[in-house]
Amino acid sequence: MTETDFLTHLRSLPLHPGAHGLTDDTATLGGLVVTTDTLVEDVHFLATDPPGDVAWKLVATNLSDLAAKGALVEGILLNYPLGDTGYDRAFLAGLADVLAVHDCPLIGGDTVTLPPGAPRVLTVTAFGRDAAAPPRSGAKAGDALYVTGTIGDAGAGLVIALAGHGDARLLARYRRPTPRLAEGRALAPLVHAMMDVSDGLLIDAARMAAASDLAVAIDLDAVPLAPGVIDPLKAATAGDDYELLFAAAPDLALPVPAARLGTFSPGRGLTLTQDKRLIPLPDHLGYQHGLR
Amino acid sequence: MTETDFLTHLRSLPLHPGAHGLTDDTATLGGLVVTTDTLVEDVHFLATDPPGDVAWKLVATNLSDLAAKGALVEGILLNYPLGDTGYDRAFLAGLADVLAVHDCPLIGGDTVTLPPGAPRVLTVTAFGRDAAAPPRSGAKAGDALYVTGTIGDAGAGLVIALAGHGDARLLARYRRPTPRLAEGRALAPLVHAMMDVSDGLLIDAARMAAASDLAVAIDLDAVPLAPGVIDPLKAATAGDDYELLFAAAPDLALPVPAARLGTFSPGRGLTLTQDKRLIPLPDHLGYQHGLR
Repeated sequence: MTETDFLTHLRSLPLHPGAHGLTDDTATLGGLVVTTDTLVEDVHFLATDPPGDVAWKLVATNLSDLAAKGALVEGILLNYPLGDTGYDRAFLAGLADVLAVHDCPLIGGDTVTLPPGAPRVLTVTAFGRDAAAPPRSGAKAGDALYVTGTIGDAGAGLVIALAGHGDARLLARYRRPTPRLAEGRALAPLVHAMMDVSDGLLIDAARMAAASDLAVAIDLDAVPLAPGVIDPLKAATAGDDYELLFAAAPDLALPVPAARLGTFSPGRGLTLTQDKRLIPLPDHLGYQHGLR
Repeated sequence: MTETDFLTHLRSLPLHPGAHGLTDDTATLGGLVVTTDTLVEDVHFLATDPPGDVAWKLVATNLSDLAAKGALVEGILLNYPLGDTGYDRAFLAGLADVLAVHDCPLIGGDTVTLPPGAPRVLTVTAFGRDAAAPPRSGAKAGDALYVTGTIGDAGAGLVIALAGHGDARLLARYRRPTPRLAEGRALAPLVHAMMDVSDGLLIDAARMAAASDLAVAIDLDAVPLAPGVIDPLKAATAGDDYELLFAAAPDLALPVPAARLGTFSPGRGLTLTQDKRLIPLPDHLGYQHGLR
């Protein structure tokens, strides 16, 4: 079953008022925003990735969802599969790093043992407070689409990780992404819609447009690329960026730097331009679960 | 690394005030109690277990932790690995059952895809409200130790599941355990310490005694056994019972039926009697993660 089909079934179950119809990356509960993400070895990270980087990424991807809500970090729960002691120690060291950098306390969790040889499956659930919490569905016709930072760095970093050599900065963007907490905090009260770029710029922009019942047009030439990243289409479909994608009034004075990528308008779907000409959409707009 | 070693390392990290030093099955957050449990195929359940029963057990084990706090059910998050459509559909049907029976709404979650052939790993995080929340560390010297229901049913049910035939009621106790929410709600304001029996009566009683800095003596002859369960020692070390284990003043008028198993006293450790004679402790008091 695809993620979309599974979600459709889940929506027929009794939903909590804070579930927002399961249309958003976070829920609301007891005055907090809550998000949960699971990472799977050989799917979301490589068995050869340093365990400390896996810990970092696991926490950072969850804090990125809090950043998109403009929340302050309250803390996390960790569900961890115990492995060999060397792996576990290195994981704990990376966990200590990422928690310290983001001032994120541990609230609780669970440990399990996996059958021998099973890929690791790790879950973090993160809680944030005092969130302005713009939805992903709030874009208005006429809004501009913006993104923070640069796009495609993590996709390039994955290639470098697989190859075993390349630009250390891009590799770090893949292995130790930075949740844009300060940027999200500044933007959240001002923007109409916001989400983090996790599966790919194009697929996530298309999701924001669909949730907002609008069309969105993106100028590929405007996608901000880091040095060493060349192909904007590959960058915009690669995923794992954890930058903030947001819709705001085109005359809004932005409190943080961001690139203007395009415009929302009445209608449906995503259109792409390059060199001022419409170009066909790629087969895959980004990463989608359950599609193999 | 063992669970105990891992927890020791986690306790050196910055902890949330609601983490209770990672000594309890639940944390406190935003006026709610929160608990999370991960179930692993071939470890906590069988690949041959009906998927609807896996859904039931996954939710029920988490609600059981809320029951031990005397909480009302607020809702759950689900982290689910998408698989083949038949499995997913059957899982969703069991999920609908267990949520309806316990009036438990869905708050959110995450779906992932596992590498081909990987054992399923599923997580539920459950939230409860209005909890009297007795700790597991609150037993007092002179308190009696009690347990609700019968013990060892699920252990016998696991043998039946593996054999493929046997008492349907015991099999159901293994596959569709009942979280003792009403009992927990009635007991929580009155008892000194409470927890659910998940890893085994003896190991969980020893944990309550250790957390309370006391010794506990248990009379094996007093362990309540269901028809068809014969060996009290096997029953008391089998786990998966999800009954409530609690310490209360010996003269407390109990609001729900429970069996009196023994007494807490100053000191440390667990002692067992049978036929009014001390007997040696078994090698394993219950199920422990990370010990192979």
